[in-house]
Amino acid sequence: MAEETIFSKIIRKEIPANIVYQDEFVTAFRDIAPQAKTHILIIPNHIIPTVNDVTEQDERILGRLFTTAAKLAQEEGIAEDGYRLIINCNKHGGQEVFHLHMHLLGGEPLGKMLAK
Amino acid sequence: MAEETIFSKIIRKEIPANIVYQDEFVTAFRDIAPQAKTHILIIPNHIIPTVNDVTEQDERILGRLFTTAAKLAQEEGIAEDGYRLIINCNKHGGQEVFHLHMHLLGGEPLGKMLAK
Repeated sequence: MAEETIFSKIIRKEIPANIVYQDEFVTAFRDIAPQAKTHILIIPNHIIPTVNDVTEQDERILGRLFTTAAKLAQEEGIAEDGYRLIINCNKHGGQEVFHLHMHLLGGEPLGKMLAK
Repeated sequence: MAEETIFSKIIRKEIPANIVYQDEFVTAFRDIAPQAKTHILIIPNHIIPTVNDVTEQDERILGRLFTTAAKLAQEEGIAEDGYRLIINCNKHGGQEVFHLHMHLLGGEPLGKMLAK
């Protein structure tokens, strides 16, 4: 059984968050420490700790992360100029919360893919 | 009708590429200009130009990008240490080929999410 993180509390609205989209599969909310003009996190409602833990049964919900990102990019007015989706896994990726999350970053040119 | 890119030729094996995985939905191959020790591109076999073009009908296949990334991370021996998945859209994201692709980057610490 996967351990709950702060994200489960956000999904259940037990702690405040700026939720911009929610359906039966996914929840999206603004990152509290934005790294670009637009910085939204999109997460599955059920706990998948890391990308290593995904299964074929999760594929539809994981695809919903993409369709939600596209919808939110339109709403944010950043679809045409563009944006970047990032999913970090474990230490080398810099994953901090162990509930799989897709970062939607945009609103400005984002530069190279890697900082190194 | 979306325009073909070099990726369609790779999928059909009309031009050489180091293909590491292929099924009825997705194809994965090594990036010819790797930006990390492991750098693989995972793409849907049918053309979706950008994330802006995804539809609910694509969700299962888009989810397959994630399950393929997890499988390849295991095979590459980078699953435990971690990795990063990146999907760029249009100019601000730095998208270069207009056939949606997920970058699987790992094999070393990847640093901050954004270079800026």
